[in-house]
Amino acid sequence: VVGEFGVIARVLAQAGTAQSAEVGPGDDAAVVRAPDKRVVATTDVLVEGRHFRRDWSSPEDIGHKAAAANLADIAAMGGVASALLVGVACPPDTQTAWLEGVAAGLAAECAPLGAAVVGGDLVAAASDSAAVVISVTALGDLYGRPAVLRSGARAGDVVALAGRLGGSACGLAVLRRGFSSPLAAVAAHRRPTPPYAAGPAAADAGARAMCDVSDGLLADTGHIARDSGVIIDLDRVALAAACLDPEGPLQQVASALGADPMSWVLTGGEDHALVATFPPRVALPEGWTAIGAVRAVGRKKPGVWVNGESAESVVKAVGAESAGHVHFG
Amino acid sequence: VVGEFGVIARVLAQAGTAQSAEVGPGDDAAVVRAPDKRVVATTDVLVEGRHFRRDWSSPEDIGHKAAAANLADIAAMGGVASALLVGVACPPDTQTAWLEGVAAGLAAECAPLGAAVVGGDLVAAASDSAAVVISVTALGDLYGRPAVLRSGARAGDVVALAGRLGGSACGLAVLRRGFSSPLAAVAAHRRPTPPYAAGPAAADAGARAMCDVSDGLLADTGHIARDSGVIIDLDRVALAAACLDPEGPLQQVASALGADPMSWVLTGGEDHALVATFPPRVALPEGWTAIGAVRAVGRKKPGVWVNGESAESVVKAVGAESAGHVHFG
Repeated sequence: VVGEFGVIARVLAQAGTAQSAEVGPGDDAAVVRAPDKRVVATTDVLVEGRHFRRDWSSPEDIGHKAAAANLADIAAMGGVASALLVGVACPPDTQTAWLEGVAAGLAAECAPLGAAVVGGDLVAAASDSAAVVISVTALGDLYGRPAVLRSGARAGDVVALAGRLGGSACGLAVLRRGFSSPLAAVAAHRRPTPPYAAGPAAADAGARAMCDVSDGLLADTGHIARDSGVIIDLDRVALAAACLDPEGPLQQVASALGADPMSWVLTGGEDHALVATFPPRVALPEGWTAIGAVRAVGRKKPGVWVNGESAESVVKAVGAESAGHVHFG
Repeated sequence: VVGEFGVIARVLAQAGTAQSAEVGPGDDAAVVRAPDKRVVATTDVLVEGRHFRRDWSSPEDIGHKAAAANLADIAAMGGVASALLVGVACPPDTQTAWLEGVAAGLAAECAPLGAAVVGGDLVAAASDSAAVVISVTALGDLYGRPAVLRSGARAGDVVALAGRLGGSACGLAVLRRGFSSPLAAVAAHRRPTPPYAAGPAAADAGARAMCDVSDGLLADTGHIARDSGVIIDLDRVALAAACLDPEGPLQQVASALGADPMSWVLTGGEDHALVATFPPRVALPEGWTAIGAVRAVGRKKPGVWVNGESAESVVKAVGAESAGHVHFG
C-alpha cells in the first residue's frame, strides 16, 4: 500500500502551509524563515507499543501527540514554533488513510501556532510486523528573546507551573483497565494540551530556567536542579491546588481505582506542562502558578524535594515505580 | 542495554559541537545560528533491512550514510549544513557500542562542514526483533543565496553533474553476491561521498534548478523535468566520460558480473551526487560536468530522455527494474 513517492506527497500536501515557510514540502529541503537569526530545533521519536497504541488512539490523536511533544520543547526554550519535519517508518501494509489521519493530527496541532509540516520522509519497513516509528523535528524562533535553559535556576527563585499534570497518566490507567471513559481522562492521554504561549511569556517575564514536563514533574525538575546546581523544593498543597480539581477526572478516577492522584501529578509523563523558575518578586505571567521554591544546596546534593522530603522517598510513598515516567510496553 | 536517559547523553556527547550551535545537546531543544534569517531543513529516515544491513555496514558506515543523505539535500538547495538532529528507535538489546559507532559516523561526516549533532532522541522499541530506524534532520544556511529549487530549469539550460553515480548500486551488487571486494566498490555503497561544496558553488554560479541524486539519475532528473515543465535530455557519451573511469570499480565489477555499468549510472541510487541546470554560456563551477541539455516540451510531456530516447525505454534496454532506485529488502 505504501509507496515512497506517491503517498508522501499526498500525506504532506494536506499538512497545510507554514506561515514562515519560504519553500514548503516537495523539494530537496524546506526553507523556513528565522527572523531572529537563530533557530530552535528539537527531535522526538514515538514508537508504536511504547508511546502509542493504534487500538487506544486514532491516527489523528497520534499526530496531535507527536506534534505536541516537540512543540512543547520549543515553548520550553521560550520559542515560538514555526515548522515541523516528520519522518515515518511503517509496515508496508499500512493504510494510506491511517497515515493521512496522522498527518491531519500533526497539522491540526500546529495550525493554531501558525506552524505546519514543511517536509518529511515516509519509508516502508522491511516487515509487515514492524512497529510504526514517528520521528518529529520542530523548528522555532526566539524573536529576540534569550533562550531559557535548564541551568539558570538560582536559590530564592520561585518555581512555577503552566499547564496540567497527571492527566496523561490518569488516562493511561483508565485505558489499561480496558475502560474508555471518563472521556476527559482518556482524552488527556490521547491528546496532551501543552500551554505553548506560556513558554515565550515566561521568557519575556524573565524566567531563569525552564523545561517541559515530558517524563514526570520529579524527573524533569530534577534536570533543572542538577543542571543549575540547586534544590527544587515543591509544595504539595500548591501542587494539589494547581492540578487536582475536585470536579476533575484525576480525583474521580483515583477514587474509582483506589489510586493516589498525587502520584500521577508527581511522576506522570507526557502532559507537556511547562515548569520554570522566576526571580523572587517577579509577577508570574498569565497561566503560571507558584508550586515551590529554589533553595541553595548547602551540604546536600542538587535534587528535588517535596516539602523538604527527597524525591526518592516521596516516590516510594506514592507507590510509583520511579521518579521518571516509564512508558508502557 | 538501552536506557533512554543514560545512553543518549553518552552517545550525543561524542558528536562534537556545531560551530553554529548556541545551545547544543542536553536541553529541551538546541539553538542554532541562522545568519541568513532563513533555515534550510530536511529529514530522511533510514530503516534497517531497507537502507542498511548491520552485517554489510559497520555502525560508523551507517552513521556516515545517514548523515550524507541529509547533508546532500541541504547542498542541493545551495545551502551549507549547520547541524543535525537524530532520532533513533532500536531494539532494547542494542549495544551501546553500536550506537556510539553510529554517532561517531554521523559526527565524522558532519565535521568537515563545521556541522555536528545538536540534539536527538533515542528510544528502545517494544520488541527485541524491531528493526533499527534512524531519522536524521539536517539544518543549513543559505548565506544570502537564493534557494535553488527543482522547478527553475528552462529550455536551453545545460544539465550538469557533480559527484559520482552508480557507485552505491555497484557496491550493492557486489555485497549481494556475497563478496566484499573490490573495496572501492563496496565502500561507495557503505559511505557515499556527496560533493557538498558543489551545491553552494552552483547556486553562486546561477544554477536555475538542482536536486540530489538519491533515487537514481533518471528518477531525480525526472523531478526537475516535471517540476520545471521541461525535457531533460541526457547525453550517454558525456555520462560515460563523467562516471565510467576505465580503471574504476564500475567497469571492473560490471565486467566480472556481466552487467551493464550504465544501468548503475542511470538508475542507481544513494550516491548523492548533485544534478543541476545552468543557463547557457555560464562557466560551470569546479567539480561540475555537462551531461545534457534542457529542451522545451513542445508536444511531448515533461520527462527525461537519453539522447532523444525516453527514460522508460532506456530503463527497459539497460534491464533495470524501474527508473527509480529500489531499495533492497
